[in-house]
Amino acid sequence: MSSRKTPERGYFAGQDLQGLADRLREGAVTSAELTAHALDAVRGLDQELNAFVSVDAEGALESARKADAELAAGDDLGPLHGIPVAVKDIIETAGMRTTMGSAHFADHVSTADAECVRRLRAGGAVIVGKTTTHEFAYGPTGDRAAGGASRNPHDPAAMSGGSSGGSAAAVAAGMVPLAVGTDTGGSVRIPAALCGVAGFKPAYGAVPADGVFPLSRSLDHVGVIARTPRDCRTAYRVLAGLRAGPPRSAGGPATVGWIAPGALFETDREVEELARAALSGRAVQEVELGDAAGLRQTYNGIQDAEAYAVHAERVADAPELFTPEVLERLQAAARTPGWRHVRAFEERQRWRAEVARLLSHHDLLALPTTPFAAPAVGQREIEVNGREVEVRWGLLSLTSPWNIAGVPALTVPVGTSRGLPVGLQLVCRPGDEDLLFAFAAGIAG
Amino acid sequence: MSSRKTPERGYFAGQDLQGLADRLREGAVTSAELTAHALDAVRGLDQELNAFVSVDAEGALESARKADAELAAGDDLGPLHGIPVAVKDIIETAGMRTTMGSAHFADHVSTADAECVRRLRAGGAVIVGKTTTHEFAYGPTGDRAAGGASRNPHDPAAMSGGSSGGSAAAVAAGMVPLAVGTDTGGSVRIPAALCGVAGFKPAYGAVPADGVFPLSRSLDHVGVIARTPRDCRTAYRVLAGLRAGPPRSAGGPATVGWIAPGALFETDREVEELARAALSGRAVQEVELGDAAGLRQTYNGIQDAEAYAVHAERVADAPELFTPEVLERLQAAARTPGWRHVRAFEERQRWRAEVARLLSHHDLLALPTTPFAAPAVGQREIEVNGREVEVRWGLLSLTSPWNIAGVPALTVPVGTSRGLPVGLQLVCRPGDEDLLFAFAAGIAG
Repeated sequence: MSSRKTPERGYFAGQDLQGLADRLREGAVTSAELTAHALDAVRGLDQELNAFVSVDAEGALESARKADAELAAGDDLGPLHGIPVAVKDIIETAGMRTTMGSAHFADHVSTADAECVRRLRAGGAVIVGKTTTHEFAYGPTGDRAAGGASRNPHDPAAMSGGSSGGSAAAVAAGMVPLAVGTDTGGSVRIPAALCGVAGFKPAYGAVPADGVFPLSRSLDHVGVIARTPRDCRTAYRVLAGLRAGPPRSAGGPATVGWIAPGALFETDREVEELARAALSGRAVQEVELGDAAGLRQTYNGIQDAEAYAVHAERVADAPELFTPEVLERLQAAARTPGWRHVRAFEERQRWRAEVARLLSHHDLLALPTTPFAAPAVGQREIEVNGREVEVRWGLLSLTSPWNIAGVPALTVPVGTSRGLPVGLQLVCRPGDEDLLFAFAAGIAG
Repeated sequence: MSSRKTPERGYFAGQDLQGLADRLREGAVTSAELTAHALDAVRGLDQELNAFVSVDAEGALESARKADAELAAGDDLGPLHGIPVAVKDIIETAGMRTTMGSAHFADHVSTADAECVRRLRAGGAVIVGKTTTHEFAYGPTGDRAAGGASRNPHDPAAMSGGSSGGSAAAVAAGMVPLAVGTDTGGSVRIPAALCGVAGFKPAYGAVPADGVFPLSRSLDHVGVIARTPRDCRTAYRVLAGLRAGPPRSAGGPATVGWIAPGALFETDREVEELARAALSGRAVQEVELGDAAGLRQTYNGIQDAEAYAVHAERVADAPELFTPEVLERLQAAARTPGWRHVRAFEERQRWRAEVARLLSHHDLLALPTTPFAAPAVGQREIEVNGREVEVRWGLLSLTSPWNIAGVPALTVPVGTSRGLPVGLQLVCRPGDEDLLFAFAAGIAG
């Protein structure tokens, strides 16, 4: 990665949501000014990063002025009121183009808002634009899409990760303080980790997926990417329809079960050490995974069938509109037999029971978010601890188990390896999100 | 069918459960005597009908004597106490051989009771023996099994129907007053209709399927076969863990939506007329099915994948232990792609909504149970209204929609066509079972 350099950052690089919300309410800044900062940052940085597929400057400024008027009138819609937000381009946003990262939808303009977008707007958020997604969200690398790869703000030669690559790059580059993504096998957490920001995948179904173009319906989650765990919490609660408010207090220091990632995938020693070191001083126990070997087959057994069911007619009618790698993967997915899909659901039940067992012994589970830092754009094999391994499954291997289980999972940045960010992943029981966020805030802080 | 003759009948041919229960409590008969009658009938008739795979004379008589002692001591376990019952041979019964109709399980002795059997025993029922099932319950004809075909008491050259063929034949021949079966696409209702008795498939999950060898888990139901709807109700309530007691009274005469069966399958005109005529004098409206054309693909898309997932290792390791037709069907089922399975579940959701809509307009839906009366054992094509049609899908075509929907469905005998029985099928909302049984009692009466 020869082009490494100190990257530029936009206005929001040093900002958090609470600070922005306070300044908006103090009159120290207006939403229109914040939105102009976001638009400036996109103009200045996105040539290189390709984080955005489209920007709605006019619509955003109009929403911002409306938010300013509402706030001035004392009509406070909550913590995202007046905040510029970016939305992944597989999420429908009324009146805006939504391409799914695909030539199939090059001219598609959404006629209605996805439920998560409706909730953002109801909370007064200002939607600045749509972020680059891996084509149909079908890939963890973020470098195959009709509009080209999104790139890593820490090094534009490095992949952003995906599929919510543009959302992660936009936050990491300080273009926006918050972006919405989706996560089927890690598509929020992977790019957040590779780009050095926080990313949260809620419990399955906690944020409705209506109006999100499906990848694999039983694995798809709507999630958020922001600079800090606290900002993830704020945005998550808006999207989940929960009241804003202080965290439920925990009953004592959280106990953590450390999952040595080698049980799931060959993991770079430095990456593993950084993640493990971030927990030093905490109550950590080693966890033995009872049943991890089959998780790749389980994940693929579920996803292949569900993904091809979404795309069968497009593959038959207009295969040339897919990029070759995605087309090839879909054609392979078509061949997964139905009985393997059924078996995968049976395995999923067993894995859920195993995860429930682990989370009855530990408040949180912890492991690296990815087994290695960002590979180069387009790279498909990488050397890890002296072995060549697959980039694609490698990226998914530590995050997808929590999609299969449907439990909340957060990534927080814990340092850099050879100049590129590394994430620590934390997993909790549904309902223990506040404990997760509070613990992570201590780590990330 | 050259061998047609006036069939012999066993002791229970003219008996109903309430009458038997009354006589047991009056001391007019003992459970030991009833059990001896059942064993006599099996001995006398089963050479011809092959309804039973195994009979547990000793165990049954022991249970009967215990029931007699309990009843004499005033320890009344309810309406099945002391009643001889037969159980389909894919349902585990502790200490008895359970073959699944397959050479794979020729020597399998159950180590525990299925939950439905546990409930029968807890209700004091006397389990007489295990009834012939189509091999692994995988067929509606009842004529492929390791132990040979079960036969129709109305004409032993005619098929019993299946897969619970032995259960239906045993009740129709008066060997027992009650038999338990399973119903994945009609496997209780089809043989009940072809043999001229009543058969009830409860709502999905209303009777636990634990301990029942699976055919297709999301379609499998445990059901009952008896002479009358009232007897079906009595047995159903025991199996479902509901209190015995008088039916919940209806708010007025039930309204019925008549589904012309031609929308689902070419139906013999005489069969259709008999079923329709049984409703004369009732409040009947014609029903238009919105979405019936794809139901066969939906059913097979679900069943193929689920069935092969159960049998994959057996097909790989010991294909020679299957009968050829069942092996061939399983090998075809293995090729159903996963995405078709996913689509089938999507179609299922649409069909469920359609059925819910129909049942919001009508208390009951009615149609024939099968499109034709019993074909000959081994027959796979049949002429209906001058057209050659498939026997297998024909038998399933009118019953399987209610497995896909998971709603209760009952068949009652409504006469004979060319000397063989014809069934009327009635479908209701889960929760409206009493209304269904009461209406059917009026028909069958």
